[in-house]
Amino acid sequence: MPQLKGTGPESDTDAVLAARLAVSATATGGEAMSDVEFFDWLDERRRRHSQEVRHTTFAELSGWHFAADTGDLEHRSGRFFAVRGIRVRTDFGPVPEWSQPIIRQPEIGILGVAVREINGVLHCLMQAKTEPGNVNGVQLSPTVQATKSNYTRVHGGSPVPYLDCFREPRARGHRVLADVLQSEQGSWFFCKRNRNMIVEVGPEVEAGEDFCWLTLRQVNALLHYENLVNMDARTVLSCLPDWHHGTVPARALHSDVAVRSWITTQQSERDVSAELLPLREIEGRGWYRTEDRISHERGLFFSIVPVHVVSNRREVASWSQPLLEPHGTGVAAMLVRRIDGVPHCLVHARVEPGYLDVVELGPTVQCTPENYAHLPPAGRPRFLDLVEAARPHRILFDTVLSEEGGRFRHAQNRYLIVEVDDDVPVEVPEDYQWLTLHQLGELLKYSHYLNVQARTLVAALRTVTGTTGGLLATGVTPPRRGDGRADHR
Amino acid sequence: MPQLKGTGPESDTDAVLAARLAVSATATGGEAMSDVEFFDWLDERRRRHSQEVRHTTFAELSGWHFAADTGDLEHRSGRFFAVRGIRVRTDFGPVPEWSQPIIRQPEIGILGVAVREINGVLHCLMQAKTEPGNVNGVQLSPTVQATKSNYTRVHGGSPVPYLDCFREPRARGHRVLADVLQSEQGSWFFCKRNRNMIVEVGPEVEAGEDFCWLTLRQVNALLHYENLVNMDARTVLSCLPDWHHGTVPARALHSDVAVRSWITTQQSERDVSAELLPLREIEGRGWYRTEDRISHERGLFFSIVPVHVVSNRREVASWSQPLLEPHGTGVAAMLVRRIDGVPHCLVHARVEPGYLDVVELGPTVQCTPENYAHLPPAGRPRFLDLVEAARPHRILFDTVLSEEGGRFRHAQNRYLIVEVDDDVPVEVPEDYQWLTLHQLGELLKYSHYLNVQARTLVAALRTVTGTTGGLLATGVTPPRRGDGRADHR
Repeated sequence: MPQLKGTGPESDTDAVLAARLAVSATATGGEAMSDVEFFDWLDERRRRHSQEVRHTTFAELSGWHFAADTGDLEHRSGRFFAVRGIRVRTDFGPVPEWSQPIIRQPEIGILGVAVREINGVLHCLMQAKTEPGNVNGVQLSPTVQATKSNYTRVHGGSPVPYLDCFREPRARGHRVLADVLQSEQGSWFFCKRNRNMIVEVGPEVEAGEDFCWLTLRQVNALLHYENLVNMDARTVLSCLPDWHHGTVPARALHSDVAVRSWITTQQSERDVSAELLPLREIEGRGWYRTEDRISHERGLFFSIVPVHVVSNRREVASWSQPLLEPHGTGVAAMLVRRIDGVPHCLVHARVEPGYLDVVELGPTVQCTPENYAHLPPAGRPRFLDLVEAARPHRILFDTVLSEEGGRFRHAQNRYLIVEVDDDVPVEVPEDYQWLTLHQLGELLKYSHYLNVQARTLVAALRTVTGTTGGLLATGVTPPRRGDGRADHR
Repeated sequence: MPQLKGTGPESDTDAVLAARLAVSATATGGEAMSDVEFFDWLDERRRRHSQEVRHTTFAELSGWHFAADTGDLEHRSGRFFAVRGIRVRTDFGPVPEWSQPIIRQPEIGILGVAVREINGVLHCLMQAKTEPGNVNGVQLSPTVQATKSNYTRVHGGSPVPYLDCFREPRARGHRVLADVLQSEQGSWFFCKRNRNMIVEVGPEVEAGEDFCWLTLRQVNALLHYENLVNMDARTVLSCLPDWHHGTVPARALHSDVAVRSWITTQQSERDVSAELLPLREIEGRGWYRTEDRISHERGLFFSIVPVHVVSNRREVASWSQPLLEPHGTGVAAMLVRRIDGVPHCLVHARVEPGYLDVVELGPTVQCTPENYAHLPPAGRPRFLDLVEAARPHRILFDTVLSEEGGRFRHAQNRYLIVEVDDDVPVEVPEDYQWLTLHQLGELLKYSHYLNVQARTLVAALRTVTGTTGGLLATGVTPPRRGDGRADHR
C-alpha cells in the first residue's frame, strides 16, 4: 500500500523545505562559487559569448514573411510566433478602444531552475545566456528557457541542456518544488504563458559550461544589479515557495476568501473584448509599416523591428526574427506599508488585452510615463507621482531590469519598492487592494493571478524582507547606480 | 488601526464556518420548512408556473438572425449569446481535427446562493425556476442566476431579485463565503464562465415567492432526485468550503505541489488549437442547416434548434431563442477508492475546445456513449465498461440531472459515483490521477481547475461522505428510480 503524504501549507515537508530555502537565502559560507568567483566567471562568459544583432528590413528577414491573406508576420514553419493585430474595447483606463500589433505565441515553453544541495545548502543552477534583444548581451537566466519549438528542435539546432530534468522529473528521481503556468506581458503578447518550474535534483547533475550554482542569497543579491537577472529567471524565482513564513500565523487586512472575491469582482465587472485581427487591418488605425519597422503614428508604445542575429552560443549560429521594441523605459513600482505591523503590498487589478481571463494583479504602478504625455492629467497613472517623489530612504529596491530578450529589443523597466505610511490610506480605490507577501505567494501557486511585472517585484520583495516577516535589509548592499559592480554588464 | 484577520485554511474563522456547515449538513430539526412542506411548496410552484416551449423555424426566431457576413446566429442587440463555428486541432482523443457550432457568450454572469442562519442552523435560499430547455419545467436553482444581459436589463424586463446581495455584499454587511469564476461545458460553450458566489446574509433577507430556505442536509438529499437541483445550483454548492475536514490532518497519495505539477504537465504537453470561425464555414464540414435546425450529418453530438417560449414567470413574458439540443443522455462518473484508508477520486485531465486554458479536471468518465458507437473499440472511453458493469452496492450515487436549461434543450447526464477497490490500480494512465476530496476542494477555490461535470460530482460526493472523511451514507435515503418522490418532477 502506498505511503500517503501530508498536504496543505502546514505539512511537514513544506516546513522543512521553507527552512532549507531560508538557509540558502541567508547563509554565507558553503557557496559552490564565491561572489568574487562568480563575477570573474560572468566576465569570462561575456568575453566568450559573441553576438551581433543588426537591424535589417522585412524583405531581408530570412524565413519570415507577411502572409498573403492576412498580412500577419509569420515564420514559414508556422511555429515560433507571429505578429498579428488585435482590437481592444474596454471600460478600463483612459482609452476605451484601440488596435495594435501583438505577438501570438500559442506554444507553452518551459522556464525551469534546477536546485541542488551543495555543502548542505540549496543552490540554483543559473545560466549565462545571450538574447538578441538584451541591451548588454549576457544575462543570468534559468537552467532551461525553451519554447516548445526550441526543445522539439523545429529549427534543427542542438538539444537543450538539462531539459529532461523538467520534462521527466519524477522518472529521474527529482522533486518538483513548483510547477505552474504563468502569463507574460499582456500588452505585447496574446494569451502567452510559460511553465514556471523549480526542480530539486541530485548530485548527478553538474554545472556545464555557461552554467553556475548559486545560493539563493547570491541570486537575491544579484537581483539588485542592473540588467543582470533576466525576466525568465525572475518569474521562476517568484514561484519558489515563500521561505519567510515558517510557523508564524499569517495575518492580513483581508481574509483569503475576501482577496479572491475582490479578484473575481474585478474580473466580472470589467467589460473587455480583445479580438485578434489580420495585421493588415491595423494599418491606418494608428499604425503604419515601412520597409524596416511597424510603428505607431505618434511614435508611442513600441515598434516591430526585423533583426539579423549572428551568435556563437545558440542552438543555431545565425538567424533572423522580428523583435518588439518598446519606446521608453517603463516603471513598475510596488508600494508597501505596514498595517498593524504586518507589511502589505498595494496591488492593482490590471486589464491587459492579452490576458487569458480579463484581469491579473500587477504592481501599484506599471506604465511607461511618456506614453501618457499626450493625455490629460486625469489620465496619468495613479500613484506615479508618489513613486517619483519618494525620498531615498523609503526606496527599498530600485533597479532597472530587462524584459524577455528573445522577443523584445532593449525592453527595460525600472522596478521600485517604495515604503509608505499613513500617506497612503488603508482604504484604496476599488481596483487596488493591500495584500500580504504571504497572500501573493499563495496566489502564485495557481495560474494567472499575478502578472509578470508583479512577479519580478515579489522576487525583489523577498530580497528586502527578513525572516520575521518585517521589511528589513538582508545584509546585501545593493549597488548604487554606476558603481563598479553594476558596470559588469 | 484596522484589525487584521487570520488567513489560510487553518484560520479560526474557517474552522468555525466548517463546523456551522457541518451542522447544517447533518442536523434534523430547526428547518425553516420541513421536508414534507418543501415538496408541497414545490408542487404548488409547478402548478403556478406555466411555460410553453414550441420548436419553431429560424425564420420565425424573433430578434435573432444569421449575420450577413459570417452566418453566425446572433441577437439583434449583440448581447446574450451567439452561435458561431469553431475549428479544433488536438492530439487528445480519437479525433485529431473537427469543426462544430459553439455557443459564444463572453459575458460573465452571477450564480449566487444566499445563506442565512435560521433557528441556529445555516439555510440556503433556493429558487423554483423554470427554464425553456428543462425536461420538466421547474427545477431548484440558486438564489440568483443571471447573465449580465439579464441584470443590466438589456431586454427591459423586471429586476433580478436578491441581485444586490451579490453585487454589493460588503456594502450591505453580508459575508462572502465563496466567490470564484468557473467554466461551463467546454464542448458547447467557447470560454464561458460564470461567477459562483455564496454569501451569508442577515435576518433582513427573507424568502420571496418562488424562494425557500433549505438546510444543507435538505439540499444534499434533493440532489439525489432526478432533474431537481439544477446545474447552476450544483456548481455553486461545489464551491462551498468543504465541511468534512475539520482538524483531521489532510493526507493524500500525491502532495498538493505534485497535483498542481501534474495539471501543469497536462496543460503543457497537449497540443490544442481552437479557433472561432464564421458559422457559415462549418456547413459542409460535417454539419448542415435546415429551416429549423443545424445538425451533424450523422445525427451525432447535438443540434441547434430555434424555440419560442411563453412563460408566466420570467422577466419577459415571451421570447424566442436558439437552444443546443444534445443527442442522447450523457454519463459522468467518478470512480472512488480508498488508498491507505483515505478516499480518493479518479479525475481525468480533459481537453475541451472551449476551455480557457487547454485542460480542466473532469470525472473519470464523461461521454455520451452513443457518440462513440461509430468509432473502433479502442476509441471507446476508458473506464466506461467498468462503470456500466458496477454492482449495485458499489454505486454510491446514481441520478440523472439536467444541464443549463437556459441554453440547452433536454440536456441530461447520468451522474454516478462508483466505489472501486484493487480492480483499479493506484498507478493510472498519465492523463488520470487520484485526488482526495480535500484536494478537489482546494482547487475549487481557484478558477478553471475543475470542470462543471466534476463540480456536480464534488457536490454529490459530499452527500455520501461522512464527517470522518470516510465514504458513508449520511442518513439520506436516496429515492429509487420511479419511486413516489422522484415523480414530483
